[in-house]
Amino acid sequence: MTSPTATLLVSCPDRRGLVATIANFIYSHNGNIIHADHHTDFAAGLFLTRIEWQLDGFDLPREAIASTFKETIADPLDANWQLHFSDTIPRLSIWVSRQDHCLLDLLWRQKAKEFHSSIPLIISNHPDLEEIAQQFGADFHYFPITKDNKVTQEAKQLELLKQYNIDVVVLAKYMQVLTADFVQKFPTVINIHHSFLPAFAGAKPYHQAYKRGVKIIGATAHYVTADLDAGPIIEQDVVRVSHRDEVTDLIRKGKDLERMVLARAVRLHLQNRVLVYGDRTVVFG
Amino acid sequence: MTSPTATLLVSCPDRRGLVATIANFIYSHNGNIIHADHHTDFAAGLFLTRIEWQLDGFDLPREAIASTFKETIADPLDANWQLHFSDTIPRLSIWVSRQDHCLLDLLWRQKAKEFHSSIPLIISNHPDLEEIAQQFGADFHYFPITKDNKVTQEAKQLELLKQYNIDVVVLAKYMQVLTADFVQKFPTVINIHHSFLPAFAGAKPYHQAYKRGVKIIGATAHYVTADLDAGPIIEQDVVRVSHRDEVTDLIRKGKDLERMVLARAVRLHLQNRVLVYGDRTVVFG
Amino acid sequence: MTSPTATLLVSCPDRRGLVATIANFIYSHNGNIIHADHHTDFAAGLFLTRIEWQLDGFDLPREAIASTFKETIADPLDANWQLHFSDTIPRLSIWVSRQDHCLLDLLWRQKAKEFHSSIPLIISNHPDLEEIAQQFGADFHYFPITKDNKVTQEAKQLELLKQYNIDVVVLAKYMQVLTADFVQKFPTVINIHHSFLPAFAGAKPYHQAYKRGVKIIGATAHYVTADLDAGPIIEQDVVRVSHRDEVTDLIRKGKDLERMVLARAVRLHLQNRVLVYGDRTVVFG
Amino acid sequence: MTSPTATLLVSCPDRRGLVATIANFIYSHNGNIIHADHHTDFAAGLFLTRIEWQLDGFDLPREAIASTFKETIADPLDANWQLHFSDTIPRLSIWVSRQDHCLLDLLWRQKAKEFHSSIPLIISNHPDLEEIAQQFGADFHYFPITKDNKVTQEAKQLELLKQYNIDVVVLAKYMQVLTADFVQKFPTVINIHHSFLPAFAGAKPYHQAYKRGVKIIGATAHYVTADLDAGPIIEQDVVRVSHRDEVTDLIRKGKDLERMVLARAVRLHLQNRVLVYGDRTVVFG
Repeated sequence: MTSPTATLLVSCPDRRGLVATIANFIYSHNGNIIHADHHTDFAAGLFLTRIEWQLDGFDLPREAIASTFKETIADPLDANWQLHFSDTIPRLSIWVSRQDHCLLDLLWRQKAKEFHSSIPLIISNHPDLEEIAQQFGADFHYFPITKDNKVTQEAKQLELLKQYNIDVVVLAKYMQVLTADFVQKFPTVINIHHSFLPAFAGAKPYHQAYKRGVKIIGATAHYVTADLDAGPIIEQDVVRVSHRDEVTDLIRKGKDLERMVLARAVRLHLQNRVLVYGDRTVVFG
Repeated sequence: MTSPTATLLVSCPDRRGLVATIANFIYSHNGNIIHADHHTDFAAGLFLTRIEWQLDGFDLPREAIASTFKETIADPLDANWQLHFSDTIPRLSIWVSRQDHCLLDLLWRQKAKEFHSSIPLIISNHPDLEEIAQQFGADFHYFPITKDNKVTQEAKQLELLKQYNIDVVVLAKYMQVLTADFVQKFPTVINIHHSFLPAFAGAKPYHQAYKRGVKIIGATAHYVTADLDAGPIIEQDVVRVSHRDEVTDLIRKGKDLERMVLARAVRLHLQNRVLVYGDRTVVFG
Repeated sequence: MTSPTATLLVSCPDRRGLVATIANFIYSHNGNIIHADHHTDFAAGLFLTRIEWQLDGFDLPREAIASTFKETIADPLDANWQLHFSDTIPRLSIWVSRQDHCLLDLLWRQKAKEFHSSIPLIISNHPDLEEIAQQFGADFHYFPITKDNKVTQEAKQLELLKQYNIDVVVLAKYMQVLTADFVQKFPTVINIHHSFLPAFAGAKPYHQAYKRGVKIIGATAHYVTADLDAGPIIEQDVVRVSHRDEVTDLIRKGKDLERMVLARAVRLHLQNRVLVYGDRTVVFG
Repeated sequence: MTSPTATLLVSCPDRRGLVATIANFIYSHNGNIIHADHHTDFAAGLFLTRIEWQLDGFDLPREAIASTFKETIADPLDANWQLHFSDTIPRLSIWVSRQDHCLLDLLWRQKAKEFHSSIPLIISNHPDLEEIAQQFGADFHYFPITKDNKVTQEAKQLELLKQYNIDVVVLAKYMQVLTADFVQKFPTVINIHHSFLPAFAGAKPYHQAYKRGVKIIGATAHYVTADLDAGPIIEQDVVRVSHRDEVTDLIRKGKDLERMVLARAVRLHLQNRVLVYGDRTVVFG
């Protein structure tokens, strides 16, 4: 499978013939489908699909695929859609505060070729992790955030994302809330929340979990929306705890959860396997 | 281990020598400890322990154990404590509405000797499950509940619990909230809530979970307190779900969770392995 | 979705255009696809798919679907395939020995409408569970098995399966090994093995697991083949154990695993979600 | 809890009064027990315990504890026992081949203070990971291994372990089998095996698992014994896989399992929570 591939993520009102219509679009241009997965949300009346095919032998020039698909398929079906090429490498920016576990884990996976991405830019509201960025060859920019300067700092951060051509921001324990305005201007942001959302939304979830005496804790990776901790969930996982675990143990166990769950979510996103609709996701396995 | 055993559950302010003091109490009367587990909650400054020993050869007469322990150990230590004998079989009352899965599961386990209990009494606010009660030789009492009659019905239910010498009430999908007054009068009530508390407290948790788009659902067994869905948690477990799962699938998957989690909690309670303090539990494994 | 549906399970050598070809077959006859999932095993060079569509409005008469699909699609593609109609209810025969937990669980799910099946026949090499069969309205046939009579008893059992028009045999803790000859004559047999295969194949897996000191035990549901414990795996699950668990605890915990795993496997099979190829399965989620 | 602590791990033939005897030993010298956990293996007739107490205020001089315990308690009880002091930091040597994920994970945790240890020495049969050792300030020694030189190389490795005062060797994907002679001379070696032992012992477990078509894969951390892959198990964990996962996916998913399971096992060992007896372990939670 060294051939580059194209991937379409499509959602549209459900109707007869959608699988055939989209598969025919690929096949009629001599494309070889290597992954196709479909889902119908009957309650919402929506058809959602991911289809990936090899570009070798595909008889539409690459630059014509989007416009042809739009005209002949997407517009008639009233579809939302994205088109991705496997040889266009997504550019990530990782945002951190002081904790390094998620950052290190993401950078190690990048180096181990688990991610189909480049990570040119790390942003932080603390200077602590600059050395890690350097070790992995990423630029590090430090933006101290206060109540007063958040809006101006976000403007500069947005500028930097533009300058680095960033496709996805990953909040890897960035302990700041982004403004609604920022999220509107740069909507592709993945966050890791250190609880099994919607349980323990908000601050200090491990302290909340300890106080409540739960027997299981979790972590949740989700897209960021203006509504804090309420964005579409990409991935969650849990770990058992007991009365023996103090808050520091929850934090320690949680760190392992956080990096696993965040890494899985980032990988799914980079493989274009996550389709958001409303405040839900379809994750094509 | 055919010898009957005694089990002490003790919690008291932490201080030096508690393990030795309690173990000596057993040993000095020639008891053979077969299980001893201790926990210190450093934040609360509390020592909590479960200790179980064989009564064969124990040189205190059974009826003197409680008073001797109280005078010589518990009172000086300002301890809360319970004493249980393994040949006193706890009597359960299971309360249900219309769903049979938890009831059947508990009755099977009773029959399969997984529980150290008898189940003489089943109470329901619907007549539907009477036949199951009869199959398993339990009396079935039907108490239709309305807003207007709840208090008077609860009075009759309490009377029945007394009459049957019930030690524990298990709410096995009993879709009614008990009044604070009832809980005060009969405090040993185990409930199964069909969510991963504190997420989705309240009504229709599977619908809430579907709406939120979570990737994992759970169930929680807890002691009932006056504060709805906030009682001390005994056991929780979870299962993965995906976009393929509709509400009916969450309900179906959840039923398996509910009966497993409730059965584990009941078994732990019957083995005197759960020690409640504040709104938390220590579960001695 | 009250319309009856048809489901095709297809595997064939991989080539360009397969998704389109099969989807077009449905669409060209005005079928409405409600589930389509595909998988390519690149190592084996195989394309595998499950496709389900509503029969209402489908313009091929039901009795012509198989022959038309065979001639126009399957034969040219050199495909293996099965066709199922949702209003043809599969008939199960459950085989047991003395343990009742899997049998009770399956019968309860049948009654709770979790299974799309009927269960007219229960076969056992012990008479113990006849009463349960009667409670659930299934016929019970007792075939004591010895080394000497196994072949003749199997002949009678096969005769009975024929007489009851049985589609699937479920070995629900049937503690006998079927002969290779039986499996050849009646190949659709699901078994539950009480270990995390291939660990602890053979007899007394819980005793083996205890002896080895593992920290996790499992159960495995698989199709039966002539090669004992080596058939294609449908589903597995595990549970944590500790040094506190004696063999009897492993057996007790294992019983819960066994009934869950077996029930999931049976449900997947009944939904025609399992496609066997070689000694592997694709389970379409 | 800034006071240093002492921890005793004891196993001895079961008899009356053991909890009291050991607790009294601590209490009579004015020790404050902060953790005590006991287990009786009834089948083996063994009592096993872990007891940890604060040294502040303990009225035996530290250097007299072992000899006093031996004379007054251990010898009369015919006990095996170990004594550890929390301010004696265990020294680890990590052994690797070419894969870095377990090594990095262990070093991160060391840096993040999750481990109560120092890691002065890394040994490898390949030169690849020297840079990582340097980054974390550990010495790196390269010992190429062939069939012919293994014995002489092991002699040098043993010499090095002695020179660095190493307490524990951790095989973090060291793809060499140690000789029985080495294990006898240096018995405290923890290994991570990339399967759910005893399934897929031996070479290439992920390839074996793929071939068998299992739905779950695992990893196992165990103490190394002369009998390959058969040593006492400390910790295991598993992850779900599906037909979508090729061997490379099993390897990738397995890497996360391996580092988690190995890290947990190392931490448990460093906290003196693992007591080996026969080919089993008690893990005091």
